[in-house]
Amino acid sequence: MLVVKKFGGTSVANKERIFNVARRCIEDYKKGNDVVVVLSAMGKYTDELIEMAQDIAPRPPKREMDMLFTIGEQMSVALMAMALNSLGVPAISLNAFQVTMHTTSAYGNARLKRIDTDRLNRELEDGKIVVVTGFQGINKYDDYTTLGRGGSDTTAVALAAALRADACEIYTDVDGVYTADPRLVPTAKKLKEITYEEMLDLSTLGAGVLHNRSVEMAKKYGVTLVVRSSMNEVEGTVVKEDVEVERMLVSGVALDKKADRIAVIGLKDEPGIAFKVFDCLAKKNINVDVILQSIGREGTKDISFTIDDGDIEEAMAVLKANKARLSFQRLECETKIAKLSIVGAGMMSNPGVAAKMFETLYNANININMISTSEIRITVLIQESDGERAIQAVHDAFGLAE
Amino acid sequence: MLVVKKFGGTSVANKERIFNVARRCIEDYKKGNDVVVVLSAMGKYTDELIEMAQDIAPRPPKREMDMLFTIGEQMSVALMAMALNSLGVPAISLNAFQVTMHTTSAYGNARLKRIDTDRLNRELEDGKIVVVTGFQGINKYDDYTTLGRGGSDTTAVALAAALRADACEIYTDVDGVYTADPRLVPTAKKLKEITYEEMLDLSTLGAGVLHNRSVEMAKKYGVTLVVRSSMNEVEGTVVKEDVEVERMLVSGVALDKKADRIAVIGLKDEPGIAFKVFDCLAKKNINVDVILQSIGREGTKDISFTIDDGDIEEAMAVLKANKARLSFQRLECETKIAKLSIVGAGMMSNPGVAAKMFETLYNANININMISTSEIRITVLIQESDGERAIQAVHDAFGLAE
Repeated sequence: MLVVKKFGGTSVANKERIFNVARRCIEDYKKGNDVVVVLSAMGKYTDELIEMAQDIAPRPPKREMDMLFTIGEQMSVALMAMALNSLGVPAISLNAFQVTMHTTSAYGNARLKRIDTDRLNRELEDGKIVVVTGFQGINKYDDYTTLGRGGSDTTAVALAAALRADACEIYTDVDGVYTADPRLVPTAKKLKEITYEEMLDLSTLGAGVLHNRSVEMAKKYGVTLVVRSSMNEVEGTVVKEDVEVERMLVSGVALDKKADRIAVIGLKDEPGIAFKVFDCLAKKNINVDVILQSIGREGTKDISFTIDDGDIEEAMAVLKANKARLSFQRLECETKIAKLSIVGAGMMSNPGVAAKMFETLYNANININMISTSEIRITVLIQESDGERAIQAVHDAFGLAE
Repeated sequence: MLVVKKFGGTSVANKERIFNVARRCIEDYKKGNDVVVVLSAMGKYTDELIEMAQDIAPRPPKREMDMLFTIGEQMSVALMAMALNSLGVPAISLNAFQVTMHTTSAYGNARLKRIDTDRLNRELEDGKIVVVTGFQGINKYDDYTTLGRGGSDTTAVALAAALRADACEIYTDVDGVYTADPRLVPTAKKLKEITYEEMLDLSTLGAGVLHNRSVEMAKKYGVTLVVRSSMNEVEGTVVKEDVEVERMLVSGVALDKKADRIAVIGLKDEPGIAFKVFDCLAKKNINVDVILQSIGREGTKDISFTIDDGDIEEAMAVLKANKARLSFQRLECETKIAKLSIVGAGMMSNPGVAAKMFETLYNANININMISTSEIRITVLIQESDGERAIQAVHDAFGLAE
């Protein structure tokens, strides 16, 4: 059996944890499995590198940032290979050049295109545990690239796909995917299984366990993921195409407090005006989430949408700069809001789910600002101060704690 | 004109120094020169990496050590490229993979075999300053190697040779090669020029300005070196084949306190016995320097030699382990000794030089323990406590301060 195991930065943050990971890999290896380990940079090392760079130049070229970033994972894999060897198991570390991991050219946000498997297979055949740098790749210019947020998860999934691995285990600091964030909802329960689609929605909606790029890739290549903790032996959550256990109507509830809302008031009511608004934002790489369009007075309309709070300043700036072209009357911006979502494959055939959610919130005296739905997801915008109460109420209403 | 400029770790130890180096490179660039910069790891970063590794494993595999070491220079070159770009000059950093620097396979002590120049030339043609990692290479397995001590100097010289550079400037924390270490001999003078041969002898003999591997390579490929300070604009010392200025009899005096002496007493006087002794040491990679062989009593002989003080324990151990095979009576070991050497191409045709040196030491009441000579060098072994007095006396006697 071939297993790809991915450990994040906190799992390799110090000597003790490095050896903890090494021992878990050796357990698998001793069972006769081929083991490929994917690592992130240690602890907060990537942040340290960012600080180092910004001390030199406030806006360093992205190409050089990636040249700097990639040393983080190289450090992790070299130290891990040393730890494994010191425990008597042959191991070798490989970086993106050595593997080779081919990506698109975009520095800081590249996509994996192809992974060469020759070297990997050769080292595995030699009986070695192979320790691979996550997050990084090489583009057609032979330059380092990085994969952006959640990059190491994506590396692990892509490796599992390329090597036709039997399992891809993503080790994190939580022991699986929960029906809600246990810090917000103490009665939240760990899910045994979840579909790619549900996981995608939960990832997008603030359940920070897996990045949706890695889930998308797992779905595309049919790689079964296991999310589990690097700190204990508890069984994790399996993410796959079809779920075998009897399904709850709703799989999970997520609360995202990082959403901000912008309202563009008094736009001329003419075709294509919404496109123009969102095109401005897209050009700055600002992702727009829940959108509400309403007819205003005197032939104008208003458009509201949510964006990540990290983008709020830039979004307001670009809209102001285009005020003349978009011809709106004014902008409103609200930052004290939160997105509450329920996700579940079971929803598709149960139209009463939305009504139950709204009723629950109404009974809890929580106002709904905007609503957005997909086939397996319902998202409402509420006041941030209502967040904890809302998620608890919805979690209870759908019986997720049982 | 194409210039290769090499800066050591102290020259890039912090932000201020990185910008200092960047500005010096830009000066050259603004004159219309093509500029290639070779950098070591920042400050004591390589030592930090060693500590990090040894915390994980006391004897990590050399292959993994090199994987860890190489991040040091990658950090330097990325930050330097950022600094150069922030000053408005296009620059790009390249590591050993990107160049590519082909080496032999020996991890930790590889030799450069070949440097590809395609990428380098392309970036130079694009008008960029190219910042290259020193010290590191890639072997035939596509693994990182490092070049051992003085590795970055060697990288710079090899790059200058491969690119047919017009100059190879080695920036250090001293402003050139002196007639003696100015800390020991305050009247020491900086040399304007020195031959490869003289530099080689001085390097070997403790004048730590250039490592002899880089000088050997410069000599082999006829690369003219300039040794100068990264901290000031003072003209440095030119190292080349023939020296044009009128030559002094002696170019420099060097004192090496790091020598230890071992005497193997009462060896059987039979052919090949010296070979056996040195073969034992060679197998442990212990370099032997000044050798003295003398006939002992009753058909035995004694062999004395000096080695670097870092090797003394291992050397004693290996000789003891082979006592039966080598059949000697006992070992003596002296650590309080020093090597004093004078070097000068002018010596070759002046047989009186040795006599003058010995006379000077005799007049200063300094005892000579062993003597070794080459065409352009005379080395004597003296008591370590006599070192400073001896170097000053000899420096004066040959009029080097004038």
